[in-house]
Amino acid sequence: MNEFDFIRSIKQSTYRNSTTIKGIGDDAAIFRQPYQDIVTAVDTFVDGIHFSNKTMKPFHVGYRALAANISDMAAMGADPISYLVSIVVPSHYSDQGLAEIYRGLDVIAKEYQLDLIGGDTVTGEQLVLSVTINGAVMRDKVRYRHLMEPGDVIFVTGTIGDSSAGLELLLNEQSDLNGAEYLINRHRMPTPRVKFAKALASIDRIALNDISDGIASEANELAQASNLAIYLEERDLPISNALKQFTRNQQLKYILNGGEDFELIGSVSPCNWQKVKQIAKQTETPVVIIGKVREEGKNNGTVFIKNNNDYNKLRPSGYVHKN
Amino acid sequence: MNEFDFIRSIKQSTYRNSTTIKGIGDDAAIFRQPYQDIVTAVDTFVDGIHFSNKTMKPFHVGYRALAANISDMAAMGADPISYLVSIVVPSHYSDQGLAEIYRGLDVIAKEYQLDLIGGDTVTGEQLVLSVTINGAVMRDKVRYRHLMEPGDVIFVTGTIGDSSAGLELLLNEQSDLNGAEYLINRHRMPTPRVKFAKALASIDRIALNDISDGIASEANELAQASNLAIYLEERDLPISNALKQFTRNQQLKYILNGGEDFELIGSVSPCNWQKVKQIAKQTETPVVIIGKVREEGKNNGTVFIKNNNDYNKLRPSGYVHKN
Repeated sequence: MNEFDFIRSIKQSTYRNSTTIKGIGDDAAIFRQPYQDIVTAVDTFVDGIHFSNKTMKPFHVGYRALAANISDMAAMGADPISYLVSIVVPSHYSDQGLAEIYRGLDVIAKEYQLDLIGGDTVTGEQLVLSVTINGAVMRDKVRYRHLMEPGDVIFVTGTIGDSSAGLELLLNEQSDLNGAEYLINRHRMPTPRVKFAKALASIDRIALNDISDGIASEANELAQASNLAIYLEERDLPISNALKQFTRNQQLKYILNGGEDFELIGSVSPCNWQKVKQIAKQTETPVVIIGKVREEGKNNGTVFIKNNNDYNKLRPSGYVHKN
Repeated sequence: MNEFDFIRSIKQSTYRNSTTIKGIGDDAAIFRQPYQDIVTAVDTFVDGIHFSNKTMKPFHVGYRALAANISDMAAMGADPISYLVSIVVPSHYSDQGLAEIYRGLDVIAKEYQLDLIGGDTVTGEQLVLSVTINGAVMRDKVRYRHLMEPGDVIFVTGTIGDSSAGLELLLNEQSDLNGAEYLINRHRMPTPRVKFAKALASIDRIALNDISDGIASEANELAQASNLAIYLEERDLPISNALKQFTRNQQLKYILNGGEDFELIGSVSPCNWQKVKQIAKQTETPVVIIGKVREEGKNNGTVFIKNNNDYNKLRPSGYVHKN
């Protein structure tokens, strides 16, 4: 397949958003958003670094790449609209594999009503997929990380650690474990929490972050951006039944520094917690409180985690520093 | 340098556009454009494919990557606003080289008043630089390729073929030619025609395309998008004094299928040609007529080129088909 046939094969015939004015086919794409702010982010996935043929089929490479971007939109409270795909394809890579990557992109794009509006396809030694996403958000509803306040409760959606447990099963070729399929699916086809994040729009102030790098890292980002301290309760961290089969030490490793769950961690005033729970129910999103926000011990942004009645410092790396 | 230090080192302390609300530092970047359309494009450059250490220093890799994107904005009549950088860096690549790539990006970003608002830095085998650009344009001033009309004149800015002549000098290590520095500079640091394209806003209808793939390819894109025929005059194609030293056959190869000049080719009603010339003078942009647009021979979009009183078909590849 030559480049022009390929571009023709991935070009949408109609657009899912009325704001998409022009997609693939000119020097650039155009979209219209008069009353909202445009939100944009880019994520890059490299074969052999972020995935391999042991962990992902080409379909999953596409699916997961866009899922990670959509999750960034959720973490800003934004509505995803469109995406651009830059792909470096080795000359030995099959046409079918390439088509499967784009099918993975399109399946999740359809699910979240996104338009593919542009891209660049080039040759190289190593498969690299770089996706830029655009979304929109009402001006006063952006969910910045710095919006935490003392007294807030810290909540998290879904269950944490599944994705990295799934990844380890794939790397060790251990698919006989009970619930292995569930964990592997959580790694390959994560569920960005857009519906939930958008429904939170009725609440004035929320800080949000998506869990791409492990909850230890993301909680530290929130604490640092807001210059406050987060106190997490280790026993309240939500884990799936599949993950419960692992030892507690393994569970904690996956939960604290596993990452790639693409769940949301957030901070909200206790007065709004009932509202958050209601929205979670309406959007069928599991959500639990896992900690609180305080001034004490903040020191430019610090996270503590409680285990056996002791609060210890939780480093971004997931390392627990007992002092 | 670790990733966080690196991100801190490339983060702008202030933004050049009031529309840039949030850059690097959260899940996504935000910019505001209530009365205009947002225009976006992505371009990807791979070491060993699009450049090598024979043709570009790290500074030029950054400079040229963003120049190509800015040129896409010019080709849409849009004002470039901000950009995101996705970069794959081999582990053996030096910190200094990486800093130089970003310096190249920043030098041209400053010149065109663009903000760096996000990105992703990952490890890989081969250096890959992928830049996504965002711009804005008044709704009725988008310069689509399909806007040509029969009777239009075809114009081009600057001189064509310099960049690929410069590339060949670099590849053959021939820097002793008179004007070699000029041609090499045209390859490494092209000049996107934003000022000129923006000043054309007072003209109702113009079709524009930037010359990234050679004038043969770009003229065919215009002809096909507009479903019309373009008739080019070979003797009117503008060439620099430096290029005149080459044989006529070499000149034509560089001009027709050389590419990467990032000049603009456009189509406008003859009634507006005086206005175009005036704007060209104001913005110090050389511009000449190189052909016309007709219904005759269009056949889903065809380009003809006149040489020795004969019009021959000009393929997108630059091949002249005598029939």
